Amino acid sequence: MSHSSDAPSAKTQVKRGRKRACYEPQRVRQIIDASLLCHVSQSIHGQPVVTPTCHWRDGDRLYWHGHAKARNVSDGRAVCINICQLNGLVLARSAFHHSVNYQSVTLFGTPELVSDREEKLYQLERFVDKVSPGRWSQLRPVTEQELMLTAIAWVPISEASVKMRDEPPIDDEADYNWPVWAGVLPLERTWGKAQADPRLRGSEWIEPVAPDSR
Amino acid sequence: MSHSSDAPSAKTQVKRGRKRACYEPQRVRQIIDASLLCHVSQSIHGQPVVTPTCHWRDGDRLYWHGHAKARNVSDGRAVCINICQLNGLVLARSAFHHSVNYQSVTLFGTPELVSDREEKLYQLERFVDKVSPGRWSQLRPVTEQELMLTAIAWVPISEASVKMRDEPPIDDEADYNWPVWAGVLPLERTWGKAQADPRLRGSEWIEPVAPDSR
Repeated sequence: MSHSSDAPSAKTQVKRGRKRACYEPQRVRQIIDASLLCHVSQSIHGQPVVTPTCHWRDGDRLYWHGHAKARNVSDGRAVCINICQLNGLVLARSAFHHSVNYQSVTLFGTPELVSDREEKLYQLERFVDKVSPGRWSQLRPVTEQELMLTAIAWVPISEASVKMRDEPPIDDEADYNWPVWAGVLPLERTWGKAQADPRLRGSEWIEPVAPDSR
Repeated sequence: MSHSSDAPSAKTQVKRGRKRACYEPQRVRQIIDASLLCHVSQSIHGQPVVTPTCHWRDGDRLYWHGHAKARNVSDGRAVCINICQLNGLVLARSAFHHSVNYQSVTLFGTPELVSDREEKLYQLERFVDKVSPGRWSQLRPVTEQELMLTAIAWVPISEASVKMRDEPPIDDEADYNWPVWAGVLPLERTWGKAQADPRLRGSEWIEPVAPDSR
């Protein structure tokens, strides 16, 4: 990973742990796509509020949705969004050098709402097909009322930084003889066996396709 | 789950999806303890900033740590903290009723820093032993300089709300005949095989104890 300091803006520049930071658009996109969940942070009358929600991506835009009246899908109010996955515990010889392996993207932006009906439908299709590839076309079609109740917000993926760690512990040289196991305990995320709705009728079903994202 | 509306404060009252909200301290603690990662949101000169970090709990306090100069371990500036785990995809017959199973705690508070040396050591011990039970006593002891470089912040777990979902899809009655598989795709988190540090000397090691938290 290049340890570039060419942050797209002063705000985006990673403040702590710059060695683990990068600003490469391809890496940003990979980390966004690998994950289903993001955290949207807003300042509401000066009070920070952070909301977990699912996201998807289309080109250089990050999208999320919510009830049309929900606070986290409003336009014109600056947000900071983080997408982070914990990939392992890094167990060192000293408490101080304990760490975690992870991948994280932090985005700054001011959301806009999708107002065009066709664009809304298209983005919902992208979202459903991220969650379960190929599913959209099998569903009962969206109604006008459902569409009206659903707000979709997006920010450009431009002011984005990556932080990540993916390596063994890095101990003080003098500590490598300390008599304790050291290494990484990896955290794995897998899709379990699909659990059919108890109200599912019939038995000859094609089970859903699990997403690559976790 | 009780669908209580007895939020500890107006700020804490869940705004959307109140049916899935509760404020029971025991449930709050369970969700905090089940997780290693939280998101700390602050408003810095009006700009929302959200940072993922690891947390631990001691009684009615939520703790996190960082470099003494890091912005997310400062006192006196209001924070909102969310701890959320995605437990499954809820695949319904309509796009509108798609959802996720999850457990989420949102906390409001104003952090204080731990300044007492003994208390700092004690909290770091709690943190390390959350990450790998019994590990603290096996480590090279913390130095005064390391202690000085480490800041520990906490907020009381008082203004806390839970949101969670853990059930099959809930479709419109008319849609239960729609010919598509419906149900839940569970997301599982497990600890993989411990990966020894390539610089680990010898071979007769006791591997670390994995935490219950994920």
